[in-house]
Amino acid sequence: MALVTLTTDFGTLYPAAMKAVILNICKDVTIVDISHTVPLGDILTGAFVLYNTAYLFPKGTVHVAVVDPGVGTCRKALILEAGGQYFVGPDNGLMIPAAHRCRKMKVWTIQVDRLFPEISSTFHGRDVFAPVGAYLAAGRNVEDLAKPSDCYVCLNLEEAIIETDTIRGKVNYVDDFGNVITSIPAHSLCNILKPRDILKLEGNDIRFVETYANSNPEETIALIGSHGFLEIAVSMGNAAEMLSISGHPAICLQKITSTDNNE
Amino acid sequence: MALVTLTTDFGTLYPAAMKAVILNICKDVTIVDISHTVPLGDILTGAFVLYNTAYLFPKGTVHVAVVDPGVGTCRKALILEAGGQYFVGPDNGLMIPAAHRCRKMKVWTIQVDRLFPEISSTFHGRDVFAPVGAYLAAGRNVEDLAKPSDCYVCLNLEEAIIETDTIRGKVNYVDDFGNVITSIPAHSLCNILKPRDILKLEGNDIRFVETYANSNPEETIALIGSHGFLEIAVSMGNAAEMLSISGHPAICLQKITSTDNNE
Amino acid sequence: MALVTLTTDFGTLYPAAMKAVILNICKDVTIVDISHTVPLGDILTGAFVLYNTAYLFPKGTVHVAVVDPGVGTCRKALILEAGGQYFVGPDNGLMIPAAHRCRKMKVWTIQVDRLFPEISSTFHGRDVFAPVGAYLAAGRNVEDLAKPSDCYVCLNLEEAIIETDTIRGKVNYVDDFGNVITSIPAHSLCNILKPRDILKLEGNDIRFVETYANSNPEETIALIGSHGFLEIAVSMGNAAEMLSISGHPAICLQKITSTDNNE
Repeated sequence: MALVTLTTDFGTLYPAAMKAVILNICKDVTIVDISHTVPLGDILTGAFVLYNTAYLFPKGTVHVAVVDPGVGTCRKALILEAGGQYFVGPDNGLMIPAAHRCRKMKVWTIQVDRLFPEISSTFHGRDVFAPVGAYLAAGRNVEDLAKPSDCYVCLNLEEAIIETDTIRGKVNYVDDFGNVITSIPAHSLCNILKPRDILKLEGNDIRFVETYANSNPEETIALIGSHGFLEIAVSMGNAAEMLSISGHPAICLQKITSTDNNE
Repeated sequence: MALVTLTTDFGTLYPAAMKAVILNICKDVTIVDISHTVPLGDILTGAFVLYNTAYLFPKGTVHVAVVDPGVGTCRKALILEAGGQYFVGPDNGLMIPAAHRCRKMKVWTIQVDRLFPEISSTFHGRDVFAPVGAYLAAGRNVEDLAKPSDCYVCLNLEEAIIETDTIRGKVNYVDDFGNVITSIPAHSLCNILKPRDILKLEGNDIRFVETYANSNPEETIALIGSHGFLEIAVSMGNAAEMLSISGHPAICLQKITSTDNNE
Repeated sequence: MALVTLTTDFGTLYPAAMKAVILNICKDVTIVDISHTVPLGDILTGAFVLYNTAYLFPKGTVHVAVVDPGVGTCRKALILEAGGQYFVGPDNGLMIPAAHRCRKMKVWTIQVDRLFPEISSTFHGRDVFAPVGAYLAAGRNVEDLAKPSDCYVCLNLEEAIIETDTIRGKVNYVDDFGNVITSIPAHSLCNILKPRDILKLEGNDIRFVETYANSNPEETIALIGSHGFLEIAVSMGNAAEMLSISGHPAICLQKITSTDNNE
């Protein structure tokens, strides 16, 4: 059975309209909601959500992703193919990290004007991306829908500047539990941090640990999380609230090397 | 594969019980959640949600809708057929606008006492509407489940009184982003409003525009939205919060015609 | 088609990862979300949700349940079989009431180390429970995945001490509408309460009624709800807010017998 996923900032009402359109075109399809609660217009959060989930799906899956503050402007609409999966959505970077993770990305521009001569200016999720995703899921060739392209908007989830005493990056994502996932990838921290090092973030002490199990209740900790990035958490608590973090601010962590080994 | 949609005010726990019942009766079925976050007992919001979504689904879809403050009273239970789709739910107007939109509505009264001699008095979503919807999805005849009726509770989403200087209606729906969708249909405003006209709502200036793209940040605007009604929005903001609108209040807009053309 | 349900405290992002894993193993599967909004680590709420829903599903359904504050510790991972249904999740009591409700429970311990020699320490929902659930849904024998066990963590949703003038229990669940469902089962109250009896809870008068229809607007009432437990509700209101109840506190109700019959 064909498989389509949806990732949007549409909230409650609009995802069902996309599903209706998909089911009209492709009757035997499993539709999986990845998320419809991406903050409105927050492309980076959408990209992070898709990056962490899409690669797990089977080959042949079509990922329709719509966080699209530029709807109604001249931004392009894209199909990406990577690792045997398809991605359909706006050309604003949203799908790029997820597609890169699936390897060997190819890019096409959807021929919107040819396929949908009379579309609304506000709801391309329903009127463009859902039908194009459904056509792909139903087995139509990409070439019928889009033409190859080599120009697209980039977006990079990995952003880290490592200096002797500071580690800089930004916030990629705050999860439902207030864990703050940064843009600092595990590989950039090789030999940089060791357990018991203390990181200072705007006056707060954050202890670097290897696993959650090594933390004390209500302690603020940093660890390499399951997403592969440095993340900041409060054991049994909400780090984002504690640190007043929302959105995607830049962060600068001061490193204070543990001297435990010398004691 | 059979297709059943669900629209309820049940929140978290109870939709899964409905799905279990449906899957017992009809194994090969795709179940699509339209919404389970209709405010408790808010028939008008439920009707608006269904009106905006149901017509998009393929022929043969069975829409089970349960916003049912009258459960346990003598209100009837209905099956509607319209445009090749079925609607199953309480007789309180909830399904009427959606069915009318699908054209040529037929009405049946579910023979609840005959089909379910021993049902709970509180959870007809699980005990009546889910099984009846599943029977229809599995191919049973309407006549086995219900008898024709010509009496039902009406509900009208279109409500507008247009006078020289005022446009009156009510609020049909507030979406997740705070956009306020009124009951004033596009067709009632032909030649009444033109771009740059100002509407006054309780002291607030609202500029009529053709598309979101024509607004300035944080400006309050009115436009004909994708739902086909006059809607009020704040560019990059939340109109319902800004105007303190919740529920379905009556609204009265004073019209101040733009004199731009004369300047 | 195979049928898998999911009940977790994962919120937004992580359920889709579990679905991806399941769909890789078992292509033709219907996945039903029971709930992903169980409060973080709240095993009792998770158990109540599963208890109220799982028994309704068809034979052969596989219920994957993950509310797992002990992930990363040495807590075991279980498969339960009961009434022709399977339950897959951590050994912390979460699945026990639901399985008991389906009768004739058998218990196996998942051989995690043998099946998944290299798993993350934090996301067993994706890395252990989802694949094991999918294997079962795809028809693999339990014996390939787990070995019989007779030792497991218990959890009991029924907890009531009935004395002449007091009824004691705890709160099992607060639903989306603020109804407070206690651990006091209907069968423990036979001949104990009659309509119009008053129950006192920390100074609040609560009238025992047979159905919601017998209440007055904004009155606090107690009744035997559709879950089979004594529940406390406010007609047209939110009982949990009114009584400041959250979590699972012990409750002690003073009984004041109605003397209406003597008047």
